[in-house]
Amino acid sequence: MSKPVLDCAGDDWHRSRVRVRYPEVDPQGVVHHAVYLHYLEIGRTELLRDLGTPYRDIERSGLRLMVTECGLRYLGSGRYDDVLVVKTRVSRVTKVRIFLLYEVVEESSGRLLCEASTTLAAIGATGRPCALPDGFSVALTSIRRGSGGASAS
Amino acid sequence: MSKPVLDCAGDDWHRSRVRVRYPEVDPQGVVHHAVYLHYLEIGRTELLRDLGTPYRDIERSGLRLMVTECGLRYLGSGRYDDVLVVKTRVSRVTKVRIFLLYEVVEESSGRLLCEASTTLAAIGATGRPCALPDGFSVALTSIRRGSGGASAS
Amino acid sequence: MSKPVLDCAGDDWHRSRVRVRYPEVDPQGVVHHAVYLHYLEIGRTELLRDLGTPYRDIERSGLRLMVTECGLRYLGSGRYDDVLVVKTRVSRVTKVRIFLLYEVVEESSGRLLCEASTTLAAIGATGRPCALPDGFSVALTSIRRGSGGASAS
Amino acid sequence: MSKPVLDCAGDDWHRSRVRVRYPEVDPQGVVHHAVYLHYLEIGRTELLRDLGTPYRDIERSGLRLMVTECGLRYLGSGRYDDVLVVKTRVSRVTKVRIFLLYEVVEESSGRLLCEASTTLAAIGATGRPCALPDGFSVALTSIRRGSGGASAS
Repeated sequence: MSKPVLDCAGDDWHRSRVRVRYPEVDPQGVVHHAVYLHYLEIGRTELLRDLGTPYRDIERSGLRLMVTECGLRYLGSGRYDDVLVVKTRVSRVTKVRIFLLYEVVEESSGRLLCEASTTLAAIGATGRPCALPDGFSVALTSIRRGSGGASAS
Repeated sequence: MSKPVLDCAGDDWHRSRVRVRYPEVDPQGVVHHAVYLHYLEIGRTELLRDLGTPYRDIERSGLRLMVTECGLRYLGSGRYDDVLVVKTRVSRVTKVRIFLLYEVVEESSGRLLCEASTTLAAIGATGRPCALPDGFSVALTSIRRGSGGASAS
Repeated sequence: MSKPVLDCAGDDWHRSRVRVRYPEVDPQGVVHHAVYLHYLEIGRTELLRDLGTPYRDIERSGLRLMVTECGLRYLGSGRYDDVLVVKTRVSRVTKVRIFLLYEVVEESSGRLLCEASTTLAAIGATGRPCALPDGFSVALTSIRRGSGGASAS
Repeated sequence: MSKPVLDCAGDDWHRSRVRVRYPEVDPQGVVHHAVYLHYLEIGRTELLRDLGTPYRDIERSGLRLMVTECGLRYLGSGRYDDVLVVKTRVSRVTKVRIFLLYEVVEESSGRLLCEASTTLAAIGATGRPCALPDGFSVALTSIRRGSGGASAS
């Protein structure tokens, strides 16, 4: 919708770890598909924290990030007590939106359980979409580059 | 703590129905024990609605009801897709607290799955405990009597 | 992947109602985006029930339906205690997969909150993909046509 | 019910850390009261892991531990992104039951948010109550003593 002002085409992933809880597993013995949205949220929360802008602080500043779109592909099954690695990556940032990509991997086996994407929109105090602060947009880029090291390009 | 101003010793129950959802069932194939707190919340929500004071309206008026205490005994197992009856009863009302009792029953068999109690405290806009509105306390009594029919008292 | 054996291009929707629960609402005061996957699950569960094949019975027969893909667009915000209508529609059925479409609408205002799609795969007792029973595939079609009335065919 | 065969009157606590997730917080801006049961479950899960008997292994051996009773007192409010310390302690062990006590504390302030107790019953492969393995009962005692250091007493 809005024109991209920044395009992060890199392949670097931020990594968070999460252990599967008992009530997150359904009668089939596998992580319920809705729970992955919680894991993705943890992934981007920790990415933002490592960026120096914890989401809690963002909300306190009057800005909220709302999920406006998501897509998930389930490729394997998480089990109770598994340790999962949530890999998160900024795909693109526009004036008002952040596009993120994710992979959820079972740590010990390396099995890929889920591929996903989410779109976040910035919402101001009035409840209307608003522009992301410039510094924040820049930071979203920098962490990606920073974590990827010397991307000479 | 606060002195009781009303004591409802009756045996009348308000009844709500809820169907067990797939993600509410854990790997043991039974409703996860934490989910019963959601069912109890539905029970008292519907009791308040039938009382003419939906909880949404209570919150809009600046009053919140917070759970300050709960106790649950699990006597049977709920299964996926079971229809449960949440029986709710006002046990006692004080100036600032409401004491509720519950039974959760599997509808088709009549099996008792859970007995429970919760204590709710009224919290005002400032975040401090506050008195329940007089009319509301009275109404909490009346619904109990009303639902029980001939309250010869 | 598998070749479609049935294509339901109709526009008829199955409708289920669900009331937003308190813990389903997040600190922003709106239904958390992950909860919509629970609502969609209720939508298809009730569709299957109305079809005469409750999902509980399907699982008992040794067949499981697993979500392999989902996509959601959030267009509005559900609030605590709102009554939502989950509209569900069979989009397409292949030998091993069912493609469903959904709309979640706030009942009183008619506001569209969420558009979504899910793909379900049939999994046999061995944990491997397996073909949907013929009768079931046919039934998935029939309910769509049945609910739509005069299927000239 | 069953006669106690072991009584742990000590005051040593096992400690686990958990960070409050966004969807765990309700519209009041505080951790929903049902979520504490998830935190308690994490507490005892990590206690069992540190004991050398992860709950996953216990289930694989054909034994399940079911919550048969719980009681919680809420003394403070957890907020989004808070780091909580779940303190868990074996209170008593009988032939078929384990009694646990908990405290949930907000880490940075030390505020006590919740005091709780749960009773777990051992259930065998047939779904009937069964005796806890001797070694396990002994281990439940030892970890308590172990975590408390050289309790030469």
